[in-house]
Amino acid sequence: MKKIDYDFEEFMKLNNEEKMNLVAQNLGNADEFKKKMKACRFSDDSLQEKLEQLSENTISNFHLPFGIAPNFLVDGTTYHVPMVTEEKGVLEAAARAADFWHQHGGFQTEDIATAKRGYIHLLWSGDGDTLESLANQFVKELETKNFEVSKELSDYDAKISETWLSDMTLEMDHYYLFGFAIETGNEMGAAFINSFLEKTAREFKKYTEQHEPGKLEILMAVLSNYNPGSYVKMKVECPVDALGELNASLGGSRFAEKFQKAVQVGKYSVSRAVTNNKGIMNGVDAVLMATGNDIRAVEGGSHAYSINKGKPESLTDCQVSNGTFTFRITIPLAVGIENELTRLHPLASQSLDILGQPSVKELMKITAAVGLASNFSGITSLITANL
Amino acid sequence: MKKIDYDFEEFMKLNNEEKMNLVAQNLGNADEFKKKMKACRFSDDSLQEKLEQLSENTISNFHLPFGIAPNFLVDGTTYHVPMVTEEKGVLEAAARAADFWHQHGGFQTEDIATAKRGYIHLLWSGDGDTLESLANQFVKELETKNFEVSKELSDYDAKISETWLSDMTLEMDHYYLFGFAIETGNEMGAAFINSFLEKTAREFKKYTEQHEPGKLEILMAVLSNYNPGSYVKMKVECPVDALGELNASLGGSRFAEKFQKAVQVGKYSVSRAVTNNKGIMNGVDAVLMATGNDIRAVEGGSHAYSINKGKPESLTDCQVSNGTFTFRITIPLAVGIENELTRLHPLASQSLDILGQPSVKELMKITAAVGLASNFSGITSLITANL
Repeated sequence: MKKIDYDFEEFMKLNNEEKMNLVAQNLGNADEFKKKMKACRFSDDSLQEKLEQLSENTISNFHLPFGIAPNFLVDGTTYHVPMVTEEKGVLEAAARAADFWHQHGGFQTEDIATAKRGYIHLLWSGDGDTLESLANQFVKELETKNFEVSKELSDYDAKISETWLSDMTLEMDHYYLFGFAIETGNEMGAAFINSFLEKTAREFKKYTEQHEPGKLEILMAVLSNYNPGSYVKMKVECPVDALGELNASLGGSRFAEKFQKAVQVGKYSVSRAVTNNKGIMNGVDAVLMATGNDIRAVEGGSHAYSINKGKPESLTDCQVSNGTFTFRITIPLAVGIENELTRLHPLASQSLDILGQPSVKELMKITAAVGLASNFSGITSLITANL
Repeated sequence: MKKIDYDFEEFMKLNNEEKMNLVAQNLGNADEFKKKMKACRFSDDSLQEKLEQLSENTISNFHLPFGIAPNFLVDGTTYHVPMVTEEKGVLEAAARAADFWHQHGGFQTEDIATAKRGYIHLLWSGDGDTLESLANQFVKELETKNFEVSKELSDYDAKISETWLSDMTLEMDHYYLFGFAIETGNEMGAAFINSFLEKTAREFKKYTEQHEPGKLEILMAVLSNYNPGSYVKMKVECPVDALGELNASLGGSRFAEKFQKAVQVGKYSVSRAVTNNKGIMNGVDAVLMATGNDIRAVEGGSHAYSINKGKPESLTDCQVSNGTFTFRITIPLAVGIENELTRLHPLASQSLDILGQPSVKELMKITAAVGLASNFSGITSLITANL
């Protein structure tokens, strides 16, 4: 197939059945190929039609196992967590940790926040103080005036919780960032935030033209996937002795000591930090996928958040003191419970049912708990490998 | 459902049908729920059975659209690329960029390498020079002697291309990293590398006990997802004037200027760098998913690789000089063409068929091209949003 180029515009215009046929034509075993593609589709046409609204040029469906990790005790409530992953052992590892912690107080949220971020990237040829004062004035008018965006914010039940102007002119001539922290309710809100920022950028351009014409150029207006203001901080905690249940031959206190060191090296070794955090994301992504959230957004945000003193560190941290073992995660999570997938995907909404229709904050906590559980099991395997 | 806790061991022992029934019991609409779960499974039992080998506690299948992005011209060969994504517009954006570059020389690989990394994390109570000399001696014997691992390496057609010892004792008492760069052939090789490292750690422990007893403790032995030695560097290039085809009102040279600035701000703004790279990963992950690779591994490695001078930067870079526009990506990719999914998943192997059974390096190039295309379209949208 790879030798035949399509006419792009014509290819895009074909319906999905025709696209499949065209792709098949270029393969040796066209009939066998088409049979396989069809076997992976929904037999129910309305399900198939909805799924195809998610993306483009869909010729079949890619199945991933949809499983249940039982018994996550989070802030006193037990959840049986749907996970979608293709990696063997990820679900079971999370579930085994969940079972242990279910018997030892469960996962406890220490802090949670939900502010997403977006920016207008702009070039300003006037002086910085003037821009600062225009930006401040504009924000005040945004809150009170009937701009189209002001109305949209309130219709959408979104709130601007903070704005700021960053002078980046030392890095690049004329470059400023006009930042917005936004609360978006039940949606992760990517599309809303982008639309809000574009409209706000147009309004701000108009506004500056009235006061300081010809000085502002908007480079772009777009949300950020770096969301340090939308995070969960969560811990598990038990007597050191209880850890002996996990590995009798090591015993609780030796287990705690090795575990702590294994986490600690993630502060010093970039190679270990990245791998440690990948182990966390194994669990996190599986919950995000099952609930119809964007894993690439959270991956980017989490790995960037893990940077401390110029390099990635573990998102988890371990303390052992006075006979108590504490294992903690702080992870940025920009998620929603209402989005394209919960509307169009037959299982994303079922996942939320299985979780008892959680709020956004509840889903964030559950996701963080699965991340912490994944890491707990991962490190446990590594330190008990009998080396 | 969330109020009922299961007996963990009993739950794990149930078959998947029984697990589904148990989960259903705790929901209001058990029959409707079971019907939905069943509607998402393969009607062909043997396909379902294979898929369930990928993970645990599978009660249904999570479908994602499997689509085709046509006309990626990479190093002179055209590929029609299977992509699996739930995000609207990701496939079409990549395909639109591919179409433009198909007419302007295509994607050109500048550099490619495939060395994966793994580490033995160890604690050494002797002096550093002694450890260094033991490690060097051990590596020589590993290459020549009939250790079990030496044989496994050659059976698997893997090669150790480099080893090193990093003294980390300034960071943590007694802590050293014994590093291995490994070539793994057609598999990404995660399971092989981990098994190799564990066995090598045991051999090294035995070896040091013979020469310097009681001084070595192995903390853990595990691959790294930080793989700066397994990467693709690739570019697209065209006359600045040609960019006018993409936006007549901006015109080629204004387009190039805005585009370059939009990429450049990813050097200065962490918020933009993360988001820029998320846009790259939209495409990259979709190809990795379709071909049965581990997206979490590549996400972690890529975001860590993006760190420069202590903070994330764009993985892409843009130059405009002498009337030529050049857009470039350097991205670490640890991928394989033979793995669990190509064996067990009905579409992962079909994806490789559609791509004409690419080699590992070919798949890396195709994936990098889709990442670069995604970013090209993403930035094009942002700078032509008419703000």
